[in-house]
Amino acid sequence: MRILGIDPGIGTCGFGLIETRSRANMRALDFGVITTTMNAELPGRLKELYESLVEVFETSKPDVVSVEKLFFSKNITTGIMVAEARGLVLLVAAQNEVPVFEYTPNEIKKALTGYGAAGKPQMQEMVRVTLGLEKKPRPDDAADGLAAAITHSLMKGLDIN
Amino acid sequence: MRILGIDPGIGTCGFGLIETRSRANMRALDFGVITTTMNAELPGRLKELYESLVEVFETSKPDVVSVEKLFFSKNITTGIMVAEARGLVLLVAAQNEVPVFEYTPNEIKKALTGYGAAGKPQMQEMVRVTLGLEKKPRPDDAADGLAAAITHSLMKGLDIN
Repeated sequence: MRILGIDPGIGTCGFGLIETRSRANMRALDFGVITTTMNAELPGRLKELYESLVEVFETSKPDVVSVEKLFFSKNITTGIMVAEARGLVLLVAAQNEVPVFEYTPNEIKKALTGYGAAGKPQMQEMVRVTLGLEKKPRPDDAADGLAAAITHSLMKGLDIN
Repeated sequence: MRILGIDPGIGTCGFGLIETRSRANMRALDFGVITTTMNAELPGRLKELYESLVEVFETSKPDVVSVEKLFFSKNITTGIMVAEARGLVLLVAAQNEVPVFEYTPNEIKKALTGYGAAGKPQMQEMVRVTLGLEKKPRPDDAADGLAAAITHSLMKGLDIN
């Protein structure tokens, strides 16, 4: 099963593709970030993001998408922009007929570390270990995409593999 | 100048197309709502919305789009869904190379009635009078779309006609 994890964002949208052999046996196939032109106007950036997402889905051929669920805590303006980006992620998933699962940041932290308030370094280390990577995946948003993918395998893996 | 006003939403997305001859001289060409399947999953609803928006833009051939700006006050979950829909509106505008202008609900109320806290009946009556319609436009979300379009003409009309 190929799981594409996505951490939505307009400036930087992280993604990570993993292949699972069983619930906890998985490897990374690809990861990275989509970036859009800083200082460009929002509609144009959304168009850039959409076109890159279409490409990522075409290349990744995921069986399922795991998306970080929106969680407003810091900044409403940022939250709105993340939601706008998230709308595009869900749209492209539907256009590709790929089922979508959503996990909150806390669920993702808990699935990977057993602790809902884990810090970034701890999360990145667990992503590295789980996927048997030599180094922590970079940049941060790509690691967040992989973490979302891993979470889906750990939480639903018993049913789907 | 053809102005397409949009009041974003996933369940119901209102739109109104007006033609302006001068800043305050305008008529309605079309208005209505896009609805998506209630109880369907979010990605599928976003796909429905996207396809309908593509159609509305193709039929309307707007020179400019005027979109109600997101304003969180009531409900965060609703707000996230509106932002997801808004992302699609901005995307389709960019795909059609139509410039986007945004107005807050207060700016729209003030432009139409002179009063930022105007009620719905008062707003709808001003939409009716401004466009020379016999009856108030229905449903409510279509009237909101028209109100966004009218606001753009009133606020930017001197520069654009």
